[in-house]
Amino acid sequence: MADASAHPIVRDDALEEYLARTADRRLESYKALLRIPSISGIPAHAPDCRAAAEFIAADLREIGMEHVEVCETGGHPVVYGDWLHAAGKPTVLLYAHYDVQPVDPVDLWESPPFVPVVKEGRMLARGSSDCKCHIAMHARAVEALLAVRKALPINLKFVFEGEEESSSVHLDAWLEANRGRLQADFAAISDTSFFEGNLPAITIGLRGLVYFQLDVTGSRIDLHSGVYGGAVDNPANALCAIVAALKGPDGRVRVPGFYDDVVDLAELDRQAFAALPFDQEAYREGIGVPAFFGEPGFSILEQIGARPTLDVNGIWGGFEGEGAKTIIPAHAHAKISCRLVANQEPERIFELIDAYIAGVAPKSIRYSIQRLGDGRPSLTPIDHPATQAASRAIESTFGVAPLYIRDGGSVPVCASFESILGLSTVLIGFAPADGQFHAPNEWMWMSNFETGIRTIARYWDEVAGLKLR
Amino acid sequence: MADASAHPIVRDDALEEYLARTADRRLESYKALLRIPSISGIPAHAPDCRAAAEFIAADLREIGMEHVEVCETGGHPVVYGDWLHAAGKPTVLLYAHYDVQPVDPVDLWESPPFVPVVKEGRMLARGSSDCKCHIAMHARAVEALLAVRKALPINLKFVFEGEEESSSVHLDAWLEANRGRLQADFAAISDTSFFEGNLPAITIGLRGLVYFQLDVTGSRIDLHSGVYGGAVDNPANALCAIVAALKGPDGRVRVPGFYDDVVDLAELDRQAFAALPFDQEAYREGIGVPAFFGEPGFSILEQIGARPTLDVNGIWGGFEGEGAKTIIPAHAHAKISCRLVANQEPERIFELIDAYIAGVAPKSIRYSIQRLGDGRPSLTPIDHPATQAASRAIESTFGVAPLYIRDGGSVPVCASFESILGLSTVLIGFAPADGQFHAPNEWMWMSNFETGIRTIARYWDEVAGLKLR
Repeated sequence: MADASAHPIVRDDALEEYLARTADRRLESYKALLRIPSISGIPAHAPDCRAAAEFIAADLREIGMEHVEVCETGGHPVVYGDWLHAAGKPTVLLYAHYDVQPVDPVDLWESPPFVPVVKEGRMLARGSSDCKCHIAMHARAVEALLAVRKALPINLKFVFEGEEESSSVHLDAWLEANRGRLQADFAAISDTSFFEGNLPAITIGLRGLVYFQLDVTGSRIDLHSGVYGGAVDNPANALCAIVAALKGPDGRVRVPGFYDDVVDLAELDRQAFAALPFDQEAYREGIGVPAFFGEPGFSILEQIGARPTLDVNGIWGGFEGEGAKTIIPAHAHAKISCRLVANQEPERIFELIDAYIAGVAPKSIRYSIQRLGDGRPSLTPIDHPATQAASRAIESTFGVAPLYIRDGGSVPVCASFESILGLSTVLIGFAPADGQFHAPNEWMWMSNFETGIRTIARYWDEVAGLKLR
Repeated sequence: MADASAHPIVRDDALEEYLARTADRRLESYKALLRIPSISGIPAHAPDCRAAAEFIAADLREIGMEHVEVCETGGHPVVYGDWLHAAGKPTVLLYAHYDVQPVDPVDLWESPPFVPVVKEGRMLARGSSDCKCHIAMHARAVEALLAVRKALPINLKFVFEGEEESSSVHLDAWLEANRGRLQADFAAISDTSFFEGNLPAITIGLRGLVYFQLDVTGSRIDLHSGVYGGAVDNPANALCAIVAALKGPDGRVRVPGFYDDVVDLAELDRQAFAALPFDQEAYREGIGVPAFFGEPGFSILEQIGARPTLDVNGIWGGFEGEGAKTIIPAHAHAKISCRLVANQEPERIFELIDAYIAGVAPKSIRYSIQRLGDGRPSLTPIDHPATQAASRAIESTFGVAPLYIRDGGSVPVCASFESILGLSTVLIGFAPADGQFHAPNEWMWMSNFETGIRTIARYWDEVAGLKLR
C-alpha cells in the first residue's frame, strides 16, 4: 500500500527563483489557453480546437522545444514537440489533451465557462482540470528547466491531443503513422487526479468505454395520441423498455456475457481498496443523491474503480416544451455508454449489447445503433521503475507519498500507447478528485498547479537516474 | 348500423346563390383566422389566443350574432354569441375551439404552419382541421342564413373555447358561472372528423385523458460517468425503468385497477366496430409503422375507440447534442398521458398511477409528478333525435348516410356539458380522419369545408322540426 505519511520537501532554489519571477506570466498563459473553447465533440468548435493547438505550438517553440508541429490527423490536430539532447538518458513520451467537454447546461455555471477566474485558490473554467492544467504545467516545467539549466535531464517528446473528449477517433491512426518519431522508454500521461481530500495519488487503473446511440422509430410523423393511441407502439415507450432491459434493478448489466472477461478482484486488491481513506456519507452528500446504487457485493470504490457500468448519458424524443402535447412521437433516442474494466474488449462488449438489443427490441418499432467511440481499459504495474520515480517526485514536492488508485474514468490512449507503440504508461496527474470535470463549474486547485510544476521537474530528474534499457 | 349508401342531395337555391357570391371572402376569412398562432399550451402565445378570440367576436358581430362577448376565464377567453329570436323553436348550444396545438418539429412542415395555403383541394395550416374550420363553417352558415332569410330556424348559442388543446383548464368554472345564459335543448360540438376515406360520420364515443409529467432527479449536477458511474443511480435509467413498468410488452397497462371501470364491449358494439370499412394494411402503411401494437383481444378500431392507453408524449434528460458526452444526467423527465374510455374517471386513474409509481420508483432517485390536465370520456346515444337530425342533414348534403364511430381522441367538454349544464351532446364535425391534427402539415379538405357549411344550415332546419321539450 501507498505510504501517505509526511516526507521532507526538497527545494530546487534556482528553479524556485525562476518560477517566482515568472508567476504572473505563468498564470496569464494558463488563462489564455482556457479562454479558447476547444470543445472537440461539437463540429462548430473545430476552429477553436485548431486555435488551441496553434496556441500550444507557439508556446512550445517559445520555451525551446524543437520540431514543434501542429499535425493533421483528419480530425482535430495533434501538437507534437520534442527536446532530444540528453544523450544516454531515458526518453519519455508525455501525453495530455487540449480539447474539452461541452458546457451545457451553461446556465448552471457561476461564471462563463471560457472566462477563467481564480476564486478562493481555484481556477474556474471548462478545461481547467481536464486537462489544460497539465499542458500548462508541463510547458512551464520545461520552460523553467531550460531557462535555469539550458538543458533537460532527459529526452522528452510531447503529444497533446485534441480529440480525447470525443473518443480519440483519429489518434490511433496518427500513432501508427508516427511510430518512428514516437519511440520512447515509456509514456507518461497527465490526465488524472489526486484522491478525495486532495491526497496525492498515482492512478494505476483506468476504465475503458463503449459509447453508442440508440435510435428508435415508429410512425412516419408524430401521431395524435387519441386518434392512433392503442393500436401502434410508441417509440419512447419502446426505448424505455429496451433501456430498462439493459440493466437490472440490482444494478447489474443484464447483457449475457458482459462480465465474462472482467478481472476478478483478488483479496489483495480488495484490501488496497479498503485501505483508501473514504467518507462514504460525506461523498454521498457531496453529490446530493438520496442513496448509493450499484452492483451488489462491491464497495463504492470497487464499483467505480474495478467494475463495469451501463449508463444513459442522454435521452430524448417527442414533446419537451411547457404544457401538454398529446402525441405519439415518431422517434426517440438515447445515448448510452458502458465504462469497461480490464480485460473487457470494447468491440466484444458492443457485439454482446448489439445482439442483446436485437433480442429485446419490440418488433413493432424499428431501431438502429450508431457507435460513437470507445476505448480499452488499462491497469499499470505499481512496481514499474517509472511509477516508483513518479512516487518519489510527488513525495519530495507534496511532502507525502502518493496513494495508488484505480480511477473510474477513461484515458483510452493508455491502451493505444501499449498496443501501438509498445510503451508502458505511467499516469501522473494533479487535478482535484472533485474538480467537476464534464460538469458546470469545472475547477483546478492553483496550489496543485504550482506544486505540480515542481513535481514534474523533479520527476524528470528522477527519471534521468533510471536505467530503463 | 349506419347506412352509408347514396342518397339524393337537397339544394337550397337561395343559400347556394349567396354562398357562390361570397366564396372568395369566405376563403379569405378562414385563412385570416388560420394566420393567428393561437397555441394555447405555450404561455408566450397568450396574446395570439386573445387576438383569435377578438377576431372571431368581430366576425360574429358582423354577421348578425348578438350579445357577442370575449369572456374572461382566468386563462384564454371564451367567445360567446347568440341569436335567440326563433320563438318556440329549439335552442342549441354550439361549441368549437379556436386554440391549436404547438407546431414543433417545425422543420417537418412543407410550408410555415401559420401561413395557410390551399394545395390540391386541401387547406394546409395548423388548426385548419382541428378545429378552426368548424368555427369558420358555423359562422358562414349563420351568415348565409341570416343574409338570405333574415332569421335562423332555431335559437343558437355559440361557445368558442381557447383552451381545448391545453386541457380546458378554465372552462368548467366558466360553464358553472354562466349556467343561466347557456341553457339549451342540447349541445352540438364540432370538433370531430369523418371516417377513413372521408366517409361522413357522426362520432358517438370519445376518449378521456389524464396527462402528467414525471420528473426524476439524482445528483445535484450532472456527474462524470467515469468518476461516479457504478455507485450512483442514473435518473434517465430510472425513468426508463418506471416507464417500462407502466405498460407490459403485451400492450396492457400494468397499473392495478386501471381497467376496473372500463365499459366492456357488448356483442352489438363489437359487430358495429367490425362493420366499419377499414383496410388495416393500408392504414398501417399510411402511418408507416412496421407492425400494429396493442392490447390483445381487440381489433385495431376497438383498441382506438373503446380501450384506454398509456403513452409517453415526450421524454428528455442529459445530453442531446451531436457526438458523445459522458455524463450521468442530474435529472430526466417524461410527459405521459392516458386516453380513457367510459366509465374511467381521470381523478381515480391518476390516483392509481400515482400509487403504482410510488411502488416501482427506485429509492436511489427522487421523483415528483405534475398533473398537466385531464378530461372525462363520453358516449352519446345514436337514437337521440338530435343525432338523427344530424344524420339526415349529412345525408341530404353529402349524399350518404353517416357512419356512427367512436373516436380515440378527447373532447372533454362533452362530459362538462353533460355534468355541469345537463345537456346531451351531438358531435358533428367535418375534419378528414387523416388530417394530421397535432402533427406537422395539418390539413382540411376544402370540399368538406364547403359542403359542411350546407350541412350545418340544413341541420338547423332539421332541428327546427324537432319537438325536444
